[in-house]
Amino acid sequence: MRSHGVAVKVLVVDIGGNNVKLLVSGRRQVRKLASGRRLTPGRMVAAVREAAADWRYDAVAIGFPGQVRHGRIVAEPANLGRGWTRYDFRRGFARPVRIINDALMQALGSYRTGRLLFIGLGTGLGAALVLEGLPQPLELAHLSYRDGFTYEDFLGKRGLDDVGKKLWRGMVFEIVPRLREAFQVDEVVIGGGNAKLLGRLPRGCRLGSNRNAFVGGFRLFPAHVRARRRPRARAGARRRRK
Amino acid sequence: MRSHGVAVKVLVVDIGGNNVKLLVSGRRQVRKLASGRRLTPGRMVAAVREAAADWRYDAVAIGFPGQVRHGRIVAEPANLGRGWTRYDFRRGFARPVRIINDALMQALGSYRTGRLLFIGLGTGLGAALVLEGLPQPLELAHLSYRDGFTYEDFLGKRGLDDVGKKLWRGMVFEIVPRLREAFQVDEVVIGGGNAKLLGRLPRGCRLGSNRNAFVGGFRLFPAHVRARRRPRARAGARRRRK
Repeated sequence: MRSHGVAVKVLVVDIGGNNVKLLVSGRRQVRKLASGRRLTPGRMVAAVREAAADWRYDAVAIGFPGQVRHGRIVAEPANLGRGWTRYDFRRGFARPVRIINDALMQALGSYRTGRLLFIGLGTGLGAALVLEGLPQPLELAHLSYRDGFTYEDFLGKRGLDDVGKKLWRGMVFEIVPRLREAFQVDEVVIGGGNAKLLGRLPRGCRLGSNRNAFVGGFRLFPAHVRARRRPRARAGARRRRK
Repeated sequence: MRSHGVAVKVLVVDIGGNNVKLLVSGRRQVRKLASGRRLTPGRMVAAVREAAADWRYDAVAIGFPGQVRHGRIVAEPANLGRGWTRYDFRRGFARPVRIINDALMQALGSYRTGRLLFIGLGTGLGAALVLEGLPQPLELAHLSYRDGFTYEDFLGKRGLDDVGKKLWRGMVFEIVPRLREAFQVDEVVIGGGNAKLLGRLPRGCRLGSNRNAFVGGFRLFPAHVRARRRPRARAGARRRRK
């Protein structure tokens, strides 16, 4: 049976080590808050609710920079404050909340068709798969690649700083096609803050966009889900992009 | 709408470098044929049809030791004869045929719930994922792991022969938990001819069984699929295991 629901307005919260970024369905202007080692989940929720006070939203999608399993944060993050594994986000936001790994959220938002590998080149190394539409987490960062060094050692910010842009680019061109082969994907999306340093891209790759993180967050709440908290949403409310 | 089909009798053909193994739905005795560098697809089909002449089957599932994409063999295998990428298996068997990578077939047959990584320790290194029921191919064998050596160099037969059983076991205990973490799976199934040399297994792992390859082949044709070539299958035909 098809349900005749209304479009859910989703507030997407993309948590990084330096910033927390916000966007709500139908808006274009991303808002930013400071992040960092003192950011506890309680402080994050309070700051986000304040910054989004003039936005209407029925649900919250959170992209989290760490391991998430079955919608729960499984380990305290190294770069943020404490308490993330225990916090009740649904209560904090007084709305339905879905939490997903940040790379996975961006992968989901970058997805078009077939099999996709997302590689996030930032401070660390993010990675995720979307296989026939289904988001699948990956944790490649700490996997050994060569001489006892991990993929993150080569492709993350430290690798870039250690060997310089030219050699770092060479490593991207060596490693990414091998991962593409290993995961048997149709295409690779390369995102993250350092992706723009690449210039050209390896074959079968396209450049990601930070906005795709928000698209991924919107996609966590399918359009046909009935909005429970605001059954009489404005008739003129813009529907989220497909 | 539900279709009221009959159970399809599937002939599963598991192609290896040394043997081709056959089993049909409802039977228990696996049959074996010789394989090797002279085995072309035409010879394989002729030999299989002859060996299975007294079995009834409506469809054929083939587990192939090489890359398969969208149901087609994409590269000529190193250990078999030639012509595999071009051969028309449907015509050869005069029945519907589904082809899948052999590790993936065994993974699918080993699957219970959640997220599974299958590792096949044989001459080479097979690997596959089943994520929430969906089979996903992997090609880890030729991915570099350390000192310029690949996962297959360490875990395949050559690694075992080079360093001996004790050190090889150590590598399995080092690498498999890392892969388990990288792919964020609930469990790992270790199969392949050399799995039995391990004795005990790393945490979160269970031992595979060659019979699971056949179970995986049967699962390629869901029970509710209508049998096209034999619409009046025997009423007493045993239904395949769920």
